[in-house]
Amino acid sequence: MDDQTHPPDEELREAPPAELPENPHPADTAEHIEGLDLNEQIKFIKQLPVRDAAQSMAEMDLHDQQDILTRLNLGLAARIVAEMAPDDAADVLDGIEEDRRRTLLRSLQADDREEITHLLAYDPDTAGGVMNTDVVILHKNLTVDQAIPQMRKEVHDEDKEIPYYAYLVDDAGRLDGVLSMRDLLIAKPGTKRLSEMISDQNLISVRVDEDREEVAHLIARYNFLALPVVDDDTKFLGVVTVDDVIDIIHEEASEDMQAMVGAGADETTDSPWSYSVKKRLPWLITNVATSAVSAVVVHMFEGSVSQMAILAVLMPVVANQAGNTGQQALAVMIRQLATERFDRKKSWLAVIRELRIGLVNGAFISCLVMLAVFMLTSNIALAGVMGLALYFDMLMGSLAGSSIPLILKELGRDPAQASSIFLTTITDSLGFFSLLGLAGLVLLH
Amino acid sequence: MDDQTHPPDEELREAPPAELPENPHPADTAEHIEGLDLNEQIKFIKQLPVRDAAQSMAEMDLHDQQDILTRLNLGLAARIVAEMAPDDAADVLDGIEEDRRRTLLRSLQADDREEITHLLAYDPDTAGGVMNTDVVILHKNLTVDQAIPQMRKEVHDEDKEIPYYAYLVDDAGRLDGVLSMRDLLIAKPGTKRLSEMISDQNLISVRVDEDREEVAHLIARYNFLALPVVDDDTKFLGVVTVDDVIDIIHEEASEDMQAMVGAGADETTDSPWSYSVKKRLPWLITNVATSAVSAVVVHMFEGSVSQMAILAVLMPVVANQAGNTGQQALAVMIRQLATERFDRKKSWLAVIRELRIGLVNGAFISCLVMLAVFMLTSNIALAGVMGLALYFDMLMGSLAGSSIPLILKELGRDPAQASSIFLTTITDSLGFFSLLGLAGLVLLH
Repeated sequence: MDDQTHPPDEELREAPPAELPENPHPADTAEHIEGLDLNEQIKFIKQLPVRDAAQSMAEMDLHDQQDILTRLNLGLAARIVAEMAPDDAADVLDGIEEDRRRTLLRSLQADDREEITHLLAYDPDTAGGVMNTDVVILHKNLTVDQAIPQMRKEVHDEDKEIPYYAYLVDDAGRLDGVLSMRDLLIAKPGTKRLSEMISDQNLISVRVDEDREEVAHLIARYNFLALPVVDDDTKFLGVVTVDDVIDIIHEEASEDMQAMVGAGADETTDSPWSYSVKKRLPWLITNVATSAVSAVVVHMFEGSVSQMAILAVLMPVVANQAGNTGQQALAVMIRQLATERFDRKKSWLAVIRELRIGLVNGAFISCLVMLAVFMLTSNIALAGVMGLALYFDMLMGSLAGSSIPLILKELGRDPAQASSIFLTTITDSLGFFSLLGLAGLVLLH
Repeated sequence: MDDQTHPPDEELREAPPAELPENPHPADTAEHIEGLDLNEQIKFIKQLPVRDAAQSMAEMDLHDQQDILTRLNLGLAARIVAEMAPDDAADVLDGIEEDRRRTLLRSLQADDREEITHLLAYDPDTAGGVMNTDVVILHKNLTVDQAIPQMRKEVHDEDKEIPYYAYLVDDAGRLDGVLSMRDLLIAKPGTKRLSEMISDQNLISVRVDEDREEVAHLIARYNFLALPVVDDDTKFLGVVTVDDVIDIIHEEASEDMQAMVGAGADETTDSPWSYSVKKRLPWLITNVATSAVSAVVVHMFEGSVSQMAILAVLMPVVANQAGNTGQQALAVMIRQLATERFDRKKSWLAVIRELRIGLVNGAFISCLVMLAVFMLTSNIALAGVMGLALYFDMLMGSLAGSSIPLILKELGRDPAQASSIFLTTITDSLGFFSLLGLAGLVLLH
C-alpha cells in the first residue's frame, strides 16, 4: 500500500495525474487508468506497486485489462496476475489470446497456476465461473476457543477476501454449515464445538454448475453476503459474494434490455463499435425478413390502398399503438422473469392480467381514435373500421407482448432475445391485415 | 425462533402447510404467505411468533404488507411493526392510509415511534429513505481492548442488523471513520485507540438527501457492504446496506425498461391491473398524439400513395428497420446511464459511436433491401428511392436513439421515460417523409 517502498521503474517519467486523491481506492485508480490511452495505461501500471496494479486492474473493463496484460512485459504481467484474486485472474485470462495465456500461466507459481486453471474450466455463466476461493474454512469439530485464533490467523496471514463468514467442513471437505462473524463474536468462549452451533441450521448452497442468474436470485432473496458453492458430493469449493452478484444483476439487466431489441447482450458504450456492428447486424437482417411479412400483408391489399389512400395514413397509427401496448406488456413480463424465480402458473396468470389491461386501454384508445377519425373525415364507416382494427390489434399486442417471453422461456431460450422484433412483426401484420381487410369488406364494394 | 414457546392464538385452526421446511427462512415464509388470499394471510400471520411475523412480512411485497397491517387487530399490528427493522417499518407505514398510520404510530413505544417518524420524513428515493439505523457506533477514543467487548455487547443485546462494520464518531456524533470486523479481529489487543487505526482512511459517505441510485452506484463501485449516511454537518445518521442496494438495482432496472415504453416504473405482475391501466393509459394517449405526426406526413403525400400503392407496402419496412436500429442504440445508452456515473463527454462520444454503427449497418441493410425491391419490382428507380430513404432513416434512428436519453438527462428528466415513444415518432415520420418525398420527386412527375 506504500508507493514509496517500491523501486522506481525505469519507464517512470510522469507523476500520477493530480486528479487522484492521495490514498485512492482501486476503483478510482481504475477509472483514472481507463481514461488514458493504451501506451499511457502501460506506463501508469508499471509505476504502481504490483499489488495496487492488480487491485486496480481487477476493477477495470475486461477488454482494457486484456489489452494491458497482452502488451506488458511477461514478468510484470505474471506478477500482477498472481496478485489478483483467483476469480478475477481467471476472468481476465479467459479472454486473452491462447498463446499468451499459456505463457502467462506457465510463468505463475504452481499453486496459483493450478487454482486459476481449475477456475478457467468452469463456464463463466455458472456459479463456478464467478466463485471466489479466498475463504475461511474451519473443521466442524473445532471448539470455539480453537476457532477464533485460527480464523484470526487465516484472515491476517492470507488476506482472505471474505472475512465475514467461516465455512465448516468435515474430514472429506464436505460442507456442513456456515458461521457468521457475528455468531463467532457473540459465542461464549469455551469448548463448545462449532458443529453444535449449526445443528438447526437450514443450510443453503448452490451446485457449481448452477446458472449465475439463479445464484443472484438466491443471494438477493435471502439477503446473504456470500453463498457457498459445492460439487455433486457437497464438497465445498468456494463462495459467490454479494459484490459479484451486483455486477451480475447489472449485466443481466443490460442483457435483457439489449437482447430484447437485438443489440449484443454484453455490449456497452466501451465496446469497440465494430463489435456492436457484428452483434446487431444479424438481428437487423432478421428484422428485414420479418418486416417482409407485414409488407406482404399490405401488398395483398394494394388495390384497397390505391382506392383509398387514407388507409395508408391510418396504417402507422394502428401499428404504432398496438406495438406500444405490446411493448408495455413485454417490459413488465421480462422484468418479472428476471427478478423472480420462474413460476409457470403465476406467469400465465400474468398473461391474463395483461389481456385485462389491454381490454380497458384498448377500448379507451380505440374510441378516442375512432372519434378523431370521424371528426377529421366525417366518414363514420371508416372511423368504425379504424376503431375495430385498432382494438383487435391492441388486444393482440397485449397477448403477444405478454406471452412471447414465456414461450421463449418454455422453449429453453432467453425470454428477452429479439422479443421486441417478434412482437412488432405480429402487431404490424395483424394490424395491417385487420385494417385493410375490414376496409375492403366494409368500405370498398 | 421457537414456535413452541408461543401461546397458541385463538384463531389458530390449521397447521402451517407442509410445503414450508421446518426452520424456514423469512423469505420462504414470505413467499408462502403471498400465495394465500388475504383472509388466510391474516390467519397465518396470527399464529406466527411476532418476531417471525415481522421478519417474514418485511420480505413481502409492500402492497401485501399494507393490506395485512390494515386488516389485523391494532395490538398485533403494532407489535409486528415494533419488531421490524426501523427502515422496513417506515417503508410499509409510508403507504398505509393516514388515519390507520397515525393510530399504529400512537400504539408504539415512544422511542420506536420517534425513530420511525423520523425515517418517514425522508424522501423514499434518497439515502435517508432507504437507510438502516441498527448499527454499531463506537466512540473514536476507545481503545481496542475497550471496543471489542462493547461491540460484542451491542451485537448481542440489541441484535444489530449490520455487525460487519463499526462506525467511529466524535463527541458531537460526527462520523470519523469506519472499522470492519476484519480490522477489529486482526487488531493487536492493547491500548491503541481506534482513531489511530483509521488515520489514513479515505472515508466515503453520502449525504442523507443523495439520490438512492447514486448510493447504489457507490456501493457497487467500491464493493462495500454498507455505506454510511451523514447530514450536512457530517453527523452520522445510519447506513445503506448492500442487500437494500440489490433491491434498488432491480427496481431501477425495471423502472428503466418499463418507463422506456411508457409502462409504470414500479409496476410488477403483482400490481393490481387497474394500477397498470392508470399508469400506461397516459402514455398510450401521448402515443396517439405522436402517431398523429407520422399520419400527417403520410397525409401530405396521399396523392403519391394513390398513384403508387407499392409505397404503402414499403412504408412499414422503413419505419420498422429504422425504429429497430434506434432502439438498439437506445437500449445501450440507457444502460450506460444506469450503470455508470454520468460523464457528459463520454456520453456524447457514445453518440458518435452509434452513428458509426448506423453508417455501417445502414449501408448493409439498405443495399440488401434495395436489391430485394429491385428483384421483386424490376423498378430500379423505386429500389434506389427505397434504399436512400431507408439509409437516411436508419441514420436518424441511430442519432435519435442515442441522443434522446442524453437530452432527457440534460433536461433533468429520467433518461428512459417514454424514450421509445419519442424515438418511434421520429423514425416513423422521417422515414415516411423521405420515402414518400423522394418518390414524389423521382418517380411521379
